[in-house]
Amino acid sequence: MRPSLRDATRGRILFGGDYNPEQWPEKTWHEDVRLMRDAGVNSVTLGVFSWSRLEPEPGAREFGWLDRLMDLMHEGGIGVVLATPTSAPPPWLGRLHPDTLPRTEDGRTEWWGGRQHFSHSSATYRRHAAAITEDLAARYGGHPALTMWHINNEYCTADHGDEAAAAFRRWLRARYGTLDALNTAWGTAFWSQGYDTWDGILPPRTPHYLKNPTQVLDFRRFTSDMLLECCVAERDIVVRHTPHIPVTTNFMPLFFGQDGWRWAEEEDVVSVDLYPDPRDPLGPQHGALVQDLTRSQARGPWMLMEQAAGPVNWRGVNHPKPRGLNRLWSLQAVARGADAVCYFQWRQSRQGAEKFHSGMVGHAGERGRSFQEVKRIGADLAALAGAVTDTRIRADVAILHDWHAWWAGAQEGRPSARVDHAAVLHAWHRALWEAHLTTDFAHPEHDLGGYRLVVVPQLYAMTDAAIDNLVAHVRAGGTLVTGFLTGVADEDDRIRPGGMDPRLRDLFGIRVLHEWWPLETGESADCDGFRGTLWSEELEADEDAVETVYRGGELDGLPAVLHRDRAWYLSTLPEPDALRALLARIAGEAGARPVLDGLPDRVEAVRRGDLLFLLNHEREPVTVAVPGTHTDLLTGDRITDRVTLGRYAVVVLRG
Amino acid sequence: MRPSLRDATRGRILFGGDYNPEQWPEKTWHEDVRLMRDAGVNSVTLGVFSWSRLEPEPGAREFGWLDRLMDLMHEGGIGVVLATPTSAPPPWLGRLHPDTLPRTEDGRTEWWGGRQHFSHSSATYRRHAAAITEDLAARYGGHPALTMWHINNEYCTADHGDEAAAAFRRWLRARYGTLDALNTAWGTAFWSQGYDTWDGILPPRTPHYLKNPTQVLDFRRFTSDMLLECCVAERDIVVRHTPHIPVTTNFMPLFFGQDGWRWAEEEDVVSVDLYPDPRDPLGPQHGALVQDLTRSQARGPWMLMEQAAGPVNWRGVNHPKPRGLNRLWSLQAVARGADAVCYFQWRQSRQGAEKFHSGMVGHAGERGRSFQEVKRIGADLAALAGAVTDTRIRADVAILHDWHAWWAGAQEGRPSARVDHAAVLHAWHRALWEAHLTTDFAHPEHDLGGYRLVVVPQLYAMTDAAIDNLVAHVRAGGTLVTGFLTGVADEDDRIRPGGMDPRLRDLFGIRVLHEWWPLETGESADCDGFRGTLWSEELEADEDAVETVYRGGELDGLPAVLHRDRAWYLSTLPEPDALRALLARIAGEAGARPVLDGLPDRVEAVRRGDLLFLLNHEREPVTVAVPGTHTDLLTGDRITDRVTLGRYAVVVLRG
Amino acid sequence: MRPSLRDATRGRILFGGDYNPEQWPEKTWHEDVRLMRDAGVNSVTLGVFSWSRLEPEPGAREFGWLDRLMDLMHEGGIGVVLATPTSAPPPWLGRLHPDTLPRTEDGRTEWWGGRQHFSHSSATYRRHAAAITEDLAARYGGHPALTMWHINNEYCTADHGDEAAAAFRRWLRARYGTLDALNTAWGTAFWSQGYDTWDGILPPRTPHYLKNPTQVLDFRRFTSDMLLECCVAERDIVVRHTPHIPVTTNFMPLFFGQDGWRWAEEEDVVSVDLYPDPRDPLGPQHGALVQDLTRSQARGPWMLMEQAAGPVNWRGVNHPKPRGLNRLWSLQAVARGADAVCYFQWRQSRQGAEKFHSGMVGHAGERGRSFQEVKRIGADLAALAGAVTDTRIRADVAILHDWHAWWAGAQEGRPSARVDHAAVLHAWHRALWEAHLTTDFAHPEHDLGGYRLVVVPQLYAMTDAAIDNLVAHVRAGGTLVTGFLTGVADEDDRIRPGGMDPRLRDLFGIRVLHEWWPLETGESADCDGFRGTLWSEELEADEDAVETVYRGGELDGLPAVLHRDRAWYLSTLPEPDALRALLARIAGEAGARPVLDGLPDRVEAVRRGDLLFLLNHEREPVTVAVPGTHTDLLTGDRITDRVTLGRYAVVVLRG
Repeated sequence: MRPSLRDATRGRILFGGDYNPEQWPEKTWHEDVRLMRDAGVNSVTLGVFSWSRLEPEPGAREFGWLDRLMDLMHEGGIGVVLATPTSAPPPWLGRLHPDTLPRTEDGRTEWWGGRQHFSHSSATYRRHAAAITEDLAARYGGHPALTMWHINNEYCTADHGDEAAAAFRRWLRARYGTLDALNTAWGTAFWSQGYDTWDGILPPRTPHYLKNPTQVLDFRRFTSDMLLECCVAERDIVVRHTPHIPVTTNFMPLFFGQDGWRWAEEEDVVSVDLYPDPRDPLGPQHGALVQDLTRSQARGPWMLMEQAAGPVNWRGVNHPKPRGLNRLWSLQAVARGADAVCYFQWRQSRQGAEKFHSGMVGHAGERGRSFQEVKRIGADLAALAGAVTDTRIRADVAILHDWHAWWAGAQEGRPSARVDHAAVLHAWHRALWEAHLTTDFAHPEHDLGGYRLVVVPQLYAMTDAAIDNLVAHVRAGGTLVTGFLTGVADEDDRIRPGGMDPRLRDLFGIRVLHEWWPLETGESADCDGFRGTLWSEELEADEDAVETVYRGGELDGLPAVLHRDRAWYLSTLPEPDALRALLARIAGEAGARPVLDGLPDRVEAVRRGDLLFLLNHEREPVTVAVPGTHTDLLTGDRITDRVTLGRYAVVVLRG
Repeated sequence: MRPSLRDATRGRILFGGDYNPEQWPEKTWHEDVRLMRDAGVNSVTLGVFSWSRLEPEPGAREFGWLDRLMDLMHEGGIGVVLATPTSAPPPWLGRLHPDTLPRTEDGRTEWWGGRQHFSHSSATYRRHAAAITEDLAARYGGHPALTMWHINNEYCTADHGDEAAAAFRRWLRARYGTLDALNTAWGTAFWSQGYDTWDGILPPRTPHYLKNPTQVLDFRRFTSDMLLECCVAERDIVVRHTPHIPVTTNFMPLFFGQDGWRWAEEEDVVSVDLYPDPRDPLGPQHGALVQDLTRSQARGPWMLMEQAAGPVNWRGVNHPKPRGLNRLWSLQAVARGADAVCYFQWRQSRQGAEKFHSGMVGHAGERGRSFQEVKRIGADLAALAGAVTDTRIRADVAILHDWHAWWAGAQEGRPSARVDHAAVLHAWHRALWEAHLTTDFAHPEHDLGGYRLVVVPQLYAMTDAAIDNLVAHVRAGGTLVTGFLTGVADEDDRIRPGGMDPRLRDLFGIRVLHEWWPLETGESADCDGFRGTLWSEELEADEDAVETVYRGGELDGLPAVLHRDRAWYLSTLPEPDALRALLARIAGEAGARPVLDGLPDRVEAVRRGDLLFLLNHEREPVTVAVPGTHTDLLTGDRITDRVTLGRYAVVVLRG
Repeated sequence: MRPSLRDATRGRILFGGDYNPEQWPEKTWHEDVRLMRDAGVNSVTLGVFSWSRLEPEPGAREFGWLDRLMDLMHEGGIGVVLATPTSAPPPWLGRLHPDTLPRTEDGRTEWWGGRQHFSHSSATYRRHAAAITEDLAARYGGHPALTMWHINNEYCTADHGDEAAAAFRRWLRARYGTLDALNTAWGTAFWSQGYDTWDGILPPRTPHYLKNPTQVLDFRRFTSDMLLECCVAERDIVVRHTPHIPVTTNFMPLFFGQDGWRWAEEEDVVSVDLYPDPRDPLGPQHGALVQDLTRSQARGPWMLMEQAAGPVNWRGVNHPKPRGLNRLWSLQAVARGADAVCYFQWRQSRQGAEKFHSGMVGHAGERGRSFQEVKRIGADLAALAGAVTDTRIRADVAILHDWHAWWAGAQEGRPSARVDHAAVLHAWHRALWEAHLTTDFAHPEHDLGGYRLVVVPQLYAMTDAAIDNLVAHVRAGGTLVTGFLTGVADEDDRIRPGGMDPRLRDLFGIRVLHEWWPLETGESADCDGFRGTLWSEELEADEDAVETVYRGGELDGLPAVLHRDRAWYLSTLPEPDALRALLARIAGEAGARPVLDGLPDRVEAVRRGDLLFLLNHEREPVTVAVPGTHTDLLTGDRITDRVTLGRYAVVVLRG
């Protein structure tokens, strides 16, 4: 039995952030501890970018500074999430071992001077990463400040170079066994791509025209697997030293490059970095989506490893967080299952590539608004911890998501480059979120038994098992709503007979899928009662299955929405309000209820354990009907029947 | 005397498409033959992408599967256009011989994994291509199914690598003889580019700032010539085996990379691939332009080698063909001279890079609308074949086009990057097409004797012979209309004296060309009676030559259109309606008449042999006055004085 | 004591241009002299692109043609600015010595075939450049036509290759002395970038994610320094031969790649190339800015080395100059301190990369409008020369500019990619120019004693000395107006305490800089009395320092403009009219007066020596009140109290 987040939280909500003290004189460290305590910080992440400090030249070890820091944290009552520093190799690694540097698909080297410039396939890199990890684990495995291990940081770097090519071949050999099987899976009979030896296979490098899409798909799988292999190798080292300490690596939100379901299986703690744009009106919904996904990956409480106290520095225009937004979004994470609310980074850098990324202590220091708000959040989290930690959230609705389907669909040479898997996922989640329906995410092959309603925004490629799982869900009395471009391909990106799997077509009453009619930017397809966007289809369907038809244009009178028993098919993407109304209606019929009736727009409500979180995402005050008498855990106020939330306000009600 | 398309058609219109049966089990081949016969298919193109199947490892030969297919086709009464497979080398070629891979101008390799990744200059590539071609020709030269050879596919790949550099030097040596002549032609006295040895000359590789334009121009000529050399080498092999079988290679429509006039001279059958965007209102005009050009290259009937039964997969948004459009555009090709109407590809792929490119049999199979429409087209072509095959189209109007002028003009560092040769060509052709004037294309040095009206949308660079040819045309009583940026440079891209050749200036009455005034996006130049776009000029002209002047702005009162005797010069691009009206008027004065008087807009009319084709490009029905009594060959209906065409309808009238 | 521009002008205004006679037969040279004399040309620049002509193969020397040209010029009374030809190495240099070719940051080679394809760090390049320079100087140092040396041309080429890497390390060693100092300055403690050996340091090459900004900053410094080293090496050679002949190299206008202050110190004559877009309504203001900057670099008269008689060829759409504009802008340069008005190039090329860049003699030749206008300008300059040459311009206002601040700020990963240093500089200069205030430019550490008003549009990074200099200016009774993002970083791009230097915050009354609020495109920040653009700030300030506040939005009521004593701080960029009004008011209070009261908009007025230049930048005539009686030097007309200027007209008044 592996340890879990619970072993780190022990009744508290972890609060703190990445701490990169290498940037500061030791004098500042003591000042930092004072401010951390002032703000209620109980956890910091050390060592993420410390490789060149720990191993300033090959084989050297400089642990003294870290010893002092670990002790200092412990004395301050602050736990340490200790990171392996392997995401940012020191300059000497690339200099002495150019084979550790990754190559892009057009053959360019990614040089040191930034970060994450390592090849997952490099034996040399792995050897050096293992050595420093081993020594870190040996030295700090027994330190009382240690609460968690953090492996690497935001794994993401692909490699198209020669050592990666060799690894790709090994990976393919393991997947396919024989060249014949690979040639069949990749469809190399087309365009004369048949491989006669394994040695002929390369990562997808820039071709003259269009790559083999299954090669691209497998390369994405390979990249995710190789990065995970790196992660697991380091994890196994630290686990050997400290079997009782949970291990995590931080995901990026809805990140394309990792198979999130597969990775989550290897994590003791699922953690994520989350940076909604403060200027984006749908920022909180994006946050909710990522939180729902992360919670579903964790199958319980999860860790917000990184967020920003203010602006980030990697957008074109980087907006600060208005007063109250940091607190609102922090509490949203708790509402949706987080037992840890952390930041990148504790103290804002004065130098280097991220000095314009905000910190909990910004350039303005202690007097800055940013730090003052952080203090308040620390107090709020302390007030909630007892009632919240380790409690669960229950959802009647599951949204299916699968990275392999995303990878298979996101290619060149497809019907419409306007179809973006992540955007479609957001659109569907938004409809449910605005309808105040709590949602989990699930893998298409997961057991769906606990859900009244399963929605499939888009699963372009599906395994047979996944298709059978959907059919079984409906047969077992569950409701299913599916968007277009679902079940089109199998796991090798081979188009299923008829352009959509026959089992699914039968389920929805589709006889013939004649043509896809993707829509241009600004174009819409009129349907009875709403307007469709992005996509439309020329379908021949069973009469009784037709719920809504297209009106006007080439598709006039043809089915737009199909509905047979508890199975629904949407051949277009309804505009937001229409999709919300439709899904709310279907959910209602399926017995999935909103968190609370009569909720105003833009007030988010979540039940976690026996608590009801209400969050006002507007600047205008809003009044919410909450029948009965409750206590607001944040203020201690007694609330009866109704509560008014001010700008960006949150109440956490019990009773 | 070489064979021609007539030797393949033998009274039929060829109907069919690329057939890539390597993708399917043999069981499907038999199903394919059944469906082909059902649809009236009488021709398929085999082997285009078969190299790795025919030669799965270096030197191997696997012909058995192709033997069976050739026999199967023959038994089914379906002729075979057999392709050399050399456009898509197998992975082993690149693996064992990296010298066969092309390089981009910034030094990147184009790897296998796509298609067309061969260097035209690679001796190794040529040797392997010749060997497989030789063996194919030896084996199938005598097969009764064989009707035509198809060399390679859509030749297009440039190469900037070292072997190409050596070939470029050889090519230049042949063109110029001496370094002095090259230095003079390239103007290397400017920017210190004088070459002291042939070895110093490279393909135009990415420089710090602006390339030598004549080097770029010659490199384009070289690339076209080298690709043609590859093509001719393979052609000569198959001709040696089968002198009686015509040979083709398929052009892309108005393709920048090949000198279409030069290439056409080497073809027994001129064939083209044509994919107008079904969503483009000017799609049919684009089709007409390409068909007119291809017919002019062929000097008679030509072959539509590839079109799509539905959507393609290489646009951002790929639209299907609405009901009837495939038929309309297929018959348009016949109207404009095609004796062969074929598709890429017979059966839509389920795997690989083109699986979203439609097929005659789509993913929806036999029941799909797409296949049902294909069947109807097969029947229509059969009905027309006897009356149509091998008949000619006569035009009073010639549009001059020259790839060398295009190549010379499409460079960096010129007056306006908004001037696109192909777009200007389209604008002029559109005006004539909308005026229902039938047009040929001609090379500027062709005999223009048969044309009442010659139009020159834009010939930035012209040889002396071409200029003399224009002048002679006018002197001989012909009419000439010329657009701006014509006769500006000679064949070395050397600006002619005065910024435009004096012979042309004399012809139009231009005394001094003071300045070009290119127009910004959205900007126009008001002229008496119309608005000019894209370009305007500050001209000093003979009083009597001034037809229209600019109004307002810096050019107020200066000449916009010049007209002296039968020579016209347009210093701007009139808006579409104005250009149409002007050209229609000039054509009328020159004695060039529309196909039919009183034709509605968007009804296209073409006379081929003794037939009159009428095509309705709108969805709304339209009535056309056709005085007299006729028979519609498609329906057998008798038509008297007027005929109503429904949505996308076609009638083919005789009598 | 070095010679100066005065030694070349000798009472004349230099008039002429780059002359590249290698392009023409010798017959044309004689025609050129005739036309030059006709136009009043008294100076040409020879040899800029002559390397391959002078040294057609390694070590050869062909001087005969240049001998003849020098003699011909001298006989024609035309002085020669003789260029070292080192900006465009001949093809043989790259062929024999690939180490002379520069590399881009992603490893691509910049090949010959264009120009400026040399590595500043290449010992081989430098050796060859020195040799040809030595021989040129030896041969022509004593030629009577020689009036000035021109080194290279528009130095600009960076290099990221291996020899440049070695040079970068040497440069860094000289700057920092120890690796520790470098690691500290670059902040390598962040992201594990600590260097353990000098050998590990590279130019900033494409990384996986974000470069080290101080590495980028130092690489920009290094590039500027290395190019200057190349320049100085050649200068020292010619100076050794001709200590009495002034030397220049031509700058590009407000060019990012050279530290203009540092370079100007090495020039005897400061010269610049200036190409405002004739279509840009702010073209003349851009011209004025560059002229003010160049004059300030020169600390006196300067040379307009290149302008265009008509269109250039490197914009997307290249507009010609309307009638009169060439003259207007030429006289503007004289008004703002130029004693030399020259062009690229004398005779427009007929071949090569710049054949669409206009010449003084265009393709239309002698009869062309362009040449006719050139003749008039020649006459005007001759009329002005006596009264103008070597006179000075006095300004009460200084604008501070520093390339290092620009380099430090123009990086990835900053608050807003919309903030463009050059655009901000233009906006502030525009406000002052439109207010008819004459401005100098100054380096932030220059003596500011002579200026009543100092404006700082934006100095993101500043040294301590620069900050102290500003504070001292205010303490000494001067007025200071500063824009946002000033004093944020030190010279290592290290954020100063509090996000802005405390000395500056004290000066303006800023207590806490809480957040930057950059604005999106199209977004503005309402302030009392005007609208701010681009940027806004959340400031906590001393009550008494608040001049204007924001209205509405998150910043409602917070300070927008601060004003304490004579120090002003603008936390946003007011819209143009508002900035003009504010600066005019502050200037007035500081005792800085417009050139003339009551000037209409778009009439530019400059006092040079005892002359008053009035320039009408509109096509509509305008009347200007000029109290008293004056003589117009251009016409000899007597002007009393008022003068009317026609389209693009200029008067030069004395008395």
